[in-house]
Amino acid sequence: MLENIRIVLSNTSHPGNIGAAARAMKTMELSRLYLVNPKKYPDAEATARASGADDLLAQATLCDDLDAAIAGCQLVIGASARSRRIPCPVIDPASCAQQAVAESAQGEVAILFGCERSGLSNAEIDRCQSLVQIPTNPVYGSLNLASAVQIIGYEILVAQRHAARSSAGPAMPEHVPAAAEELQRYFEHLESVLVKLEFLDPDNPRKLMRRLRRLYNRARPDENEINILRGVLSATEQERHK
Amino acid sequence: MLENIRIVLSNTSHPGNIGAAARAMKTMELSRLYLVNPKKYPDAEATARASGADDLLAQATLCDDLDAAIAGCQLVIGASARSRRIPCPVIDPASCAQQAVAESAQGEVAILFGCERSGLSNAEIDRCQSLVQIPTNPVYGSLNLASAVQIIGYEILVAQRHAARSSAGPAMPEHVPAAAEELQRYFEHLESVLVKLEFLDPDNPRKLMRRLRRLYNRARPDENEINILRGVLSATEQERHK
Repeated sequence: MLENIRIVLSNTSHPGNIGAAARAMKTMELSRLYLVNPKKYPDAEATARASGADDLLAQATLCDDLDAAIAGCQLVIGASARSRRIPCPVIDPASCAQQAVAESAQGEVAILFGCERSGLSNAEIDRCQSLVQIPTNPVYGSLNLASAVQIIGYEILVAQRHAARSSAGPAMPEHVPAAAEELQRYFEHLESVLVKLEFLDPDNPRKLMRRLRRLYNRARPDENEINILRGVLSATEQERHK
Repeated sequence: MLENIRIVLSNTSHPGNIGAAARAMKTMELSRLYLVNPKKYPDAEATARASGADDLLAQATLCDDLDAAIAGCQLVIGASARSRRIPCPVIDPASCAQQAVAESAQGEVAILFGCERSGLSNAEIDRCQSLVQIPTNPVYGSLNLASAVQIIGYEILVAQRHAARSSAGPAMPEHVPAAAEELQRYFEHLESVLVKLEFLDPDNPRKLMRRLRRLYNRARPDENEINILRGVLSATEQERHK
């Protein structure tokens, strides 16, 4: 099952952290590493810090943008160190792991880590169904990237072994959410229609879109529902041309 | 409560690992670091890797032997990467954390980490009431020292916050186990009496002692019980001189 869970590191600054994250992943039976625009990669320091997990580096998928890294994923959970103004469901590492393991039985799951200095950007959070927050010392939350991957990976391995032990296996959700790229196409379609309708504030068009994204990311539409929603948008567009 | 939980690093080879462990501890609100015979300490690499957690290094307690590091502890849990021939209760990190947090409400608790290469020695395991084993990939269990401290620390912080949230607080055991040094004095007394009684195999005196240690480490006698047990030993010695 863990084959369906990928770790996505976005805009990582230090190659050593990529190597250390690969090592942390492998100790926890995670093998699929996706790198979005790493600042310096491949790099000797990454290989050195991987220390026996260099096979994960060799097999890592290098991506030009986040879309490519989360393509096909029905669930994207972002790792966030701090509270955000924009409300997005925040879960703890154990819940994140249980959900990731349960959904990995039927599809692809991504756990997304932002860059070391500033974490996830708002545009990255837009693509997440929920955020996982690792509890830390309020006066010293300086968890490095590999340590965060280590803790999330540990919880995933614990959840996976727990699921494997229970004879019933993980609870299989009846609902199969649409892949990340289908959702993204829907949001692009929605935005273009709202622009045409002059519904978006032209000075701040992203603000409303962000709220709408939250709504749909909570709802997690499946493929059929996305088709319906896009059908509505197409009908709206045609109406304007009548 | 976490003030009563100490992290003991025994015979650490690389000072960088001590610094990284201090950083991992501080992110998880642990502050009390005990170092038993570190190979190289203090050291600039330890300070560099501590990265803002150097206050923990400055306050760390340097000890010549394990006895000094676990003095006053009613519970000592050893971190072990592998299964041992000698049976000792093995618990998972969540159980370790729950027990450590619960007992820290009434006394001192130590989590003991052995040296990087070989882990805990048999003599160190002798001093533990139980062993905590972090689940890892069976073909790549290469968890470094700071990563192990990070995971155990994370579970301790989770358990502490959970205990703080529950209005009842952590379950307070009725039984207050004796401190590590009282237990140790009992074992020394017991061994000396058994030698006098010629009960121990002179070719392998440690073997039986190890089994007896297991028994009492499971039972976790309190101070009163230790006094009774030692009273029995004293009576046995006097009997021989009659």
